[in-house]
Amino acid sequence: MQPLFETVAIAGPGLIGGSLGMAIRQRRLAGRVIGIGHRQVSLQEALKAGAADSVTLEAAEGVREADLVVLATPISALARLMPAIAASAKTQAVITDVASTKQDVIATVTGALRTRPDVAYVPAHPMTGSERRGVANAHALLFERSVCILTPLPGTSAVAVRRVRELWEGVGARVCQMDPASHDHLVARISHLPHLAAVALLQTTSADEAALAGPGLTDTTRIASGDPALWRDICETNAPHITLALDAYLKVLEHLRDLVASRQFDRLQELLCEAKARRDGLITARGGEMPRRA
Amino acid sequence: MQPLFETVAIAGPGLIGGSLGMAIRQRRLAGRVIGIGHRQVSLQEALKAGAADSVTLEAAEGVREADLVVLATPISALARLMPAIAASAKTQAVITDVASTKQDVIATVTGALRTRPDVAYVPAHPMTGSERRGVANAHALLFERSVCILTPLPGTSAVAVRRVRELWEGVGARVCQMDPASHDHLVARISHLPHLAAVALLQTTSADEAALAGPGLTDTTRIASGDPALWRDICETNAPHITLALDAYLKVLEHLRDLVASRQFDRLQELLCEAKARRDGLITARGGEMPRRA
Repeated sequence: MQPLFETVAIAGPGLIGGSLGMAIRQRRLAGRVIGIGHRQVSLQEALKAGAADSVTLEAAEGVREADLVVLATPISALARLMPAIAASAKTQAVITDVASTKQDVIATVTGALRTRPDVAYVPAHPMTGSERRGVANAHALLFERSVCILTPLPGTSAVAVRRVRELWEGVGARVCQMDPASHDHLVARISHLPHLAAVALLQTTSADEAALAGPGLTDTTRIASGDPALWRDICETNAPHITLALDAYLKVLEHLRDLVASRQFDRLQELLCEAKARRDGLITARGGEMPRRA
Repeated sequence: MQPLFETVAIAGPGLIGGSLGMAIRQRRLAGRVIGIGHRQVSLQEALKAGAADSVTLEAAEGVREADLVVLATPISALARLMPAIAASAKTQAVITDVASTKQDVIATVTGALRTRPDVAYVPAHPMTGSERRGVANAHALLFERSVCILTPLPGTSAVAVRRVRELWEGVGARVCQMDPASHDHLVARISHLPHLAAVALLQTTSADEAALAGPGLTDTTRIASGDPALWRDICETNAPHITLALDAYLKVLEHLRDLVASRQFDRLQELLCEAKARRDGLITARGGEMPRRA
């Protein structure tokens, strides 16, 4: 089978970028993968992990021959990185990203690419990850049974969108499309809200009290072990939608609080049943729990 | 080594009771384990799983020779079950339980035992479990690295308390003691609140939206797959403390919401760092993630 892309450059071969590099190489979806980073030691780790065929500290050099450039750095690093990529990207290259928020990131990337109408940008958000960062925690199965959301822009070539879609499907994801605003509104509720809900749970107890808890609390708060800088970026680039999501969550919680306080346990049990059905449905819909790194 | 108890009777050999039976038998902490249930098919399952040496549908018969009786039924079944146990318990027997709430349960059990001053009751709450119920999900390692809270009553013999403590330590738990009101106040925040927070997260999105989520949402809401009847019992028997815990949680969430809405991201990031440190500390303190059934 023909690979989807001859050369793929991944800027930021960490947890997500590194896992993508490993999956692309193992499934031979590209002729070669170039890792671009800003620390030699991380790049050597990426090489050793099999996340790239070669690595470079120079973004301009890394993207020069790339048919596909994947932006997988933290969101806050994109503005600094984009000028070099825009200046050096190959003619007709396709660019995609993996950022958790889209409207703000799209503004940054398309702003940098305004001199490069030949380059197609297809924003993407793989809905997976881990509270652990870095290529040391990357694995080729990270995208299996996950969802990847594409938010293509008006005027982007359908061929470029199809090729990016095929890449994500190639690494095991189910791909869906929506506009960037809908994406940001959605992920505020299904991803950013759970993070802040977990953070708030930890703030509601002392460390000594939490040390007595069972697996319920540790699982519920797992995502709060995620990188604070990365989550700050997310909150900063999706603040209005996250505020709305928190408002909606507060309303639901106040309702639950009132049911408990007024001892309306029949009604409460109905809501517990609804929640159980929805949670069980989540797992069934995706055919079981997602694979984890051993 | 002498077993801790000659005969242990476990009323309700499901997830918790069944796991305790398996752990007691595998570690030879008792001469024999008798399972008491109200459905023949569950009892046969318990026998086959190795959770008991023998089983019976008759509580009176099951407890007659037991030196230790473990109450592991749902909370709402205790009032119905206790008269038979109080009438038939062996002289000088010790009774313990595994209920998630203590003040209300203690009232039920001590009420039934008022004619049996020879019987010692040592309330216990193993802080572990699973969203999956029944002996089919039980396993002998469930209590490893977990915490078991004892809430002994004034006047209970120190010997009985020590024997119950040794049993829980024998199955791998770290045991601590507090009074029943402190327990109920604590678990409202570290166990019951996370459950309702998870339920509320699921109520804040539609099923179609949630189906697009990554592992963050599925992990954060895992406990919402728990048995609604069991969680209704918990809410019903700990309503005042749960109301207070929800009030505290609402306050923290409102603060986070205001930080996001007013774009105070430096302060937000400090809170994200604190939460990460607390969550990481939880895992480190217990020497790693808790064992799970394969």
